[in-house]
Amino acid sequence: MNKATRISPRTLKGFRDHLPESMIARERIMETARQVYRSFGFSPIDTPALEYLEILAGKGSEETDRQLYRFQDHGKRWVGLRFDLTVPLARFAAQHVGELGTPFKRYHIASVWRGENTQLGRYREFMQCDFDTIGTLSTVADIETILVVHELLQAIGIERFTIHVNHRQILNGLLEKLELAEQATVVLRCLDKLPKIGRDAVQEEMRTVGVAAEKSTEILQLSELSGENEEILRGLSKLAQGNSRAEEGLAKLEEIFQGVQVAGVAPGRLRIDPSIARGLDYYTGTVIETFLDDLPRIGSVCSGGRYDNLAELYTSQVLPGIGASLGLDRMLAALEELNLLEKVRTPAEVFVPFFAADRLHDYLHLTNALRRLGWGVEMYPEPRKLGSQLKYADRRGFACAIIVGEDEFQASTCQVKDLRSGESQEVRHGGDVSRIADVLRTLLRPESMPSV
Amino acid sequence: MNKATRISPRTLKGFRDHLPESMIARERIMETARQVYRSFGFSPIDTPALEYLEILAGKGSEETDRQLYRFQDHGKRWVGLRFDLTVPLARFAAQHVGELGTPFKRYHIASVWRGENTQLGRYREFMQCDFDTIGTLSTVADIETILVVHELLQAIGIERFTIHVNHRQILNGLLEKLELAEQATVVLRCLDKLPKIGRDAVQEEMRTVGVAAEKSTEILQLSELSGENEEILRGLSKLAQGNSRAEEGLAKLEEIFQGVQVAGVAPGRLRIDPSIARGLDYYTGTVIETFLDDLPRIGSVCSGGRYDNLAELYTSQVLPGIGASLGLDRMLAALEELNLLEKVRTPAEVFVPFFAADRLHDYLHLTNALRRLGWGVEMYPEPRKLGSQLKYADRRGFACAIIVGEDEFQASTCQVKDLRSGESQEVRHGGDVSRIADVLRTLLRPESMPSV
Repeated sequence: MNKATRISPRTLKGFRDHLPESMIARERIMETARQVYRSFGFSPIDTPALEYLEILAGKGSEETDRQLYRFQDHGKRWVGLRFDLTVPLARFAAQHVGELGTPFKRYHIASVWRGENTQLGRYREFMQCDFDTIGTLSTVADIETILVVHELLQAIGIERFTIHVNHRQILNGLLEKLELAEQATVVLRCLDKLPKIGRDAVQEEMRTVGVAAEKSTEILQLSELSGENEEILRGLSKLAQGNSRAEEGLAKLEEIFQGVQVAGVAPGRLRIDPSIARGLDYYTGTVIETFLDDLPRIGSVCSGGRYDNLAELYTSQVLPGIGASLGLDRMLAALEELNLLEKVRTPAEVFVPFFAADRLHDYLHLTNALRRLGWGVEMYPEPRKLGSQLKYADRRGFACAIIVGEDEFQASTCQVKDLRSGESQEVRHGGDVSRIADVLRTLLRPESMPSV
Repeated sequence: MNKATRISPRTLKGFRDHLPESMIARERIMETARQVYRSFGFSPIDTPALEYLEILAGKGSEETDRQLYRFQDHGKRWVGLRFDLTVPLARFAAQHVGELGTPFKRYHIASVWRGENTQLGRYREFMQCDFDTIGTLSTVADIETILVVHELLQAIGIERFTIHVNHRQILNGLLEKLELAEQATVVLRCLDKLPKIGRDAVQEEMRTVGVAAEKSTEILQLSELSGENEEILRGLSKLAQGNSRAEEGLAKLEEIFQGVQVAGVAPGRLRIDPSIARGLDYYTGTVIETFLDDLPRIGSVCSGGRYDNLAELYTSQVLPGIGASLGLDRMLAALEELNLLEKVRTPAEVFVPFFAADRLHDYLHLTNALRRLGWGVEMYPEPRKLGSQLKYADRRGFACAIIVGEDEFQASTCQVKDLRSGESQEVRHGGDVSRIADVLRTLLRPESMPSV
């Protein structure tokens, strides 16, 4: 192969490789999400990356439509790559709910694709970790959704986070009360700009779309409620008074708020937040967003909400539900920034250098005996100088090396070297590999040792 | 939404949804593969589903080229969906090997796409579980590759399987010896047909492409060696005699064969098989295929081999390596047929019916206390009649239900019902949920109980 015909190895703009260090962290969080979702009875599903274009197109926003990867397949069918996991869930639920029954609780951890503007630092392929409960209106599902988010963040190793909760019926009821129900979309669009442009500018914008000052003042009161959760609830109660929709929404919000605390969530982890509406989304009830206390500016790392009817485009069966989604890439970026990401470059902890060239069989016997005792072990594949192999081990980030040369094989001993501290100890195992495993346990799993 | 405008919910031809029962089994095998790969020091990586078309096109066979999903993206770049994980690995290695160093051991578990003919029962989206060791010529890597396959099959729960091993240099050397090296491709194409068309027809075909009868007889002897592994090795030794390439290949094969056994693989699990060449593949050294003893006709469930230079299309750095791949879909089909697939439809084992409508907070407290003790618990979201909830639990396949009504809450007791046997027992927990957990452990984890 000559140089001229060689192809430059590169990834597409907006796409990226995950090297071991990045992928080990990703796998750890995906596995954590799986375990937490499963512990609440959510089952995994998967759907194809490619769907008929008519299933996907026009189901998100104008933006997702524009960003959709679409093409004709070998059979001249128009197809698209999924841009989220909610549209495929709607199609899936319409197709299989008869067989699966309700309530149907599923999780789905998978890649989605969007032809995003990469100048905004966005990727065109990213991973979502969704979970949803379909087919029930019960607030128990709302409570559990918040509990799952709470357990998930804790299990990932984050201590300082706050789950913001609101109920769309409160806002809708208030707009109804102010006879602004018809203008809800425009009003919400103005309200959404509050954090960016400030109170006066929002009120001015509302005026230009025909909302009288006394009405916009009342709407803005919602976002200005402050203090403890109980105070906010009292304030909401006053605003909701006289409108049954808002009162009902508030009653549900209180029920959810109490239920979540009964289940063991510290009150400080929850925030009743009348300002979150999740914009022009399809949510109709509870809405939640999750912020990291030490990194609020990155936005919500786990968001979701309740919807009235998931799959109306595909079936006449009414399927209400609630769900949320962990943004894996945003979460990983946050962990990195907060220095909470353990740097692991090798999934096996133990390294066995291979330097007594005539002893291949003894090395193979040793490494496999250790693996059978549950240890992840990498053996260097070529007989080289010990020094260069230990350099490799340091670079790769192994925790520990088991060093055995000709003398050690003859004496049935080995050196166990802690590569983090640099300390070595001799182990006289007399041919019993479990004695080496005992030393590894003391070194690498001190918490599992019986206390004396 | 009226019926006329509704979209029929369906997947594309050759694509499919994975419902919970299927997906739980898939996740279990993927997790098993991850654990086994990691225990040998292989690290996870991921690459984009989409690559520049020039990276993918012309890298497999004419067939993969034809089957490639290709299109122009939003920036009018020609792109394609990966059709395997080897071409992306070659591109990845060329790009990152400087940073990562060698030996580089990676695994990659991901979907690939091929516009296959679905009439053959093939899918257009399927999952591969690859692992490779790059940057070493040492036979230690070959030995470990076979060990990984062996551990993987065992860990999946298969007892009766045989790993067939051969070395391409033996065949190449023999052809060289017979002065047929130039015709290797045609000869191999004929030889590959042996299981289908039989010995005489192969010899006749070889004759038509110009291979003299005495030469084809000698080639066919290779495939006809039988008996114990040691006998086959002796037979190969005779055939290889006088050609250094074949002798070298045989020496390596013997070294690998011995090393694998030293590491603890039972001799019956291994088969020296001079007939496997993996056709016109890019393999140049060791080749392996794995057959299930009770289901040989489905073909190899785990195949791989050694190659001289992985990434020559993308870099001047010579990267020899060896790897293998578990075909997840074929393996799952086999487990199903062999009745080795545990039917699990819910990932949480414990079901808590919610039927004392006023006791929501008590149910929430109970279920979350059990989750904190490590149990997967699903609580029914709506207060319904106990009978209909237990029917739901049976249908979903929970192992056990914890039944608590008003009376039980007042008395601090509960009924723990084994849904598999139908037997119930009363537990007087006195408010200490760990007593319920003890009963669950006796019921669902008898193996973890201390023997009396």
